[in-house]
Amino acid sequence: MSAAQLRRLIRNRQWSKPTTGLAPGWVQANLVMLPKEEAFHFLLFCVRNPKPCPILDVLEPGQTEPRIAPGADLRTDLPKYRVYEKGVLKAEVEEVGHLFHKDMVSFLLGCSFSFENAMLAAGLPIRNMEEGKNVSMYITSKPCASAGPFSCPMVVSMRPMTPEQAVRAVQVTTRFHLTHGAPVHMGSPEAIGIQDLNKPEFGDPVTICAGEIPVFWACGVTSTLAAISACLPLVITHAPGHMFVSDLKDEHLTLL
Amino acid sequence: MSAAQLRRLIRNRQWSKPTTGLAPGWVQANLVMLPKEEAFHFLLFCVRNPKPCPILDVLEPGQTEPRIAPGADLRTDLPKYRVYEKGVLKAEVEEVGHLFHKDMVSFLLGCSFSFENAMLAAGLPIRNMEEGKNVSMYITSKPCASAGPFSCPMVVSMRPMTPEQAVRAVQVTTRFHLTHGAPVHMGSPEAIGIQDLNKPEFGDPVTICAGEIPVFWACGVTSTLAAISACLPLVITHAPGHMFVSDLKDEHLTLL
Repeated sequence: MSAAQLRRLIRNRQWSKPTTGLAPGWVQANLVMLPKEEAFHFLLFCVRNPKPCPILDVLEPGQTEPRIAPGADLRTDLPKYRVYEKGVLKAEVEEVGHLFHKDMVSFLLGCSFSFENAMLAAGLPIRNMEEGKNVSMYITSKPCASAGPFSCPMVVSMRPMTPEQAVRAVQVTTRFHLTHGAPVHMGSPEAIGIQDLNKPEFGDPVTICAGEIPVFWACGVTSTLAAISACLPLVITHAPGHMFVSDLKDEHLTLL
Repeated sequence: MSAAQLRRLIRNRQWSKPTTGLAPGWVQANLVMLPKEEAFHFLLFCVRNPKPCPILDVLEPGQTEPRIAPGADLRTDLPKYRVYEKGVLKAEVEEVGHLFHKDMVSFLLGCSFSFENAMLAAGLPIRNMEEGKNVSMYITSKPCASAGPFSCPMVVSMRPMTPEQAVRAVQVTTRFHLTHGAPVHMGSPEAIGIQDLNKPEFGDPVTICAGEIPVFWACGVTSTLAAISACLPLVITHAPGHMFVSDLKDEHLTLL
């Protein structure tokens, strides 16, 4: 199934579940929509924090058709959205045409699904996939660089592997600098403020085998935390795991 | 001489000439200052055109101390500035404290000086240095992706070398993705709208030897063209070759 075919299913309400593993090879993206008055500062936040918030596309105020997916409509083409008012989650909905207005700006940010295919191709383990779970995500003690009213700690995702596999994982994911790139930490959860690997703030805990270390990548959930940190009147994001699927291919985003 | 020492000389008016070759190893940057009303769209222009306009730092409205050079002041620490009103060059000055105001935003963008050191270290020729000239720069027929009122063609710099050297130059400069990265074209000037290599729009013509091809990199002068394209009441840039010298080292900017 191509990205365009998947988006058509979603728009027609024939798919409303997570997009993990669907349309493999096409780049999936985190979505943030917010009022144009704060668009400069949010864009600045992303520019200052490129590892958690790598920018794939930013639309001009009121626009809904991304440059990275001609013909798509960001108001209807994600399976599930979250609506925040003054920083508080108010609703989870399947389309946002009634909420989006001409003074809102949409941001599409890279997602680690892109490098997971490359990791699998390199023979590296993705434990959450093996166990049929969502990846483990943690709020760290590492502050992001703030911009205007946007300020939050970095969120990371974690995949356990042997130190030898971790070396290969650094090499494989470095190429994907627009989808979080190389790890931000490995080995010592407590050094980045994670008390208990079995209690992730988002997603599910996974098994860590003897001889494995936890490897941490910057995570796109950071962008949601940042967006709601400003307590704006309205912020719309994708619901976790329910991403926007673009017409870019993973290989388009690699540097080498 | 370190970057900080050079900036002190400049601030004290003891240096007002180009910064080429000074404080080697420290990252030099293009400067654009413009009114905050258009800061979102100019930042968007840079995000959409990362090869000619790689973002090193963006300051919040009214701020003058970059994050990439603590203690520096962008109003005084460049040897020469250009002042544009409604898109027209009005003056060349040595400081802009009397013009900069609290509603202006400053952008610092990468410059090819960073990868020239790496090219020299790799034994590659930089003809303009050999001949004591400024690099040849051309306005191409390749349009940049526009954003709001900002729209212009891409400007490129050109260095002649053999095809074998060009292969090595691609490898060497790919690492420097925040200072223009890999070439955007090589071999056929006419394919990108350049009629005569001996008549660059900016800088000087250089000798092209038998067996050499022209290799083209995206050029930071594009950011000046973009900034003045919107005919804003006030835009301030560095004067060509008179760059801001930051506390970043070239190696900080490499991906690998």
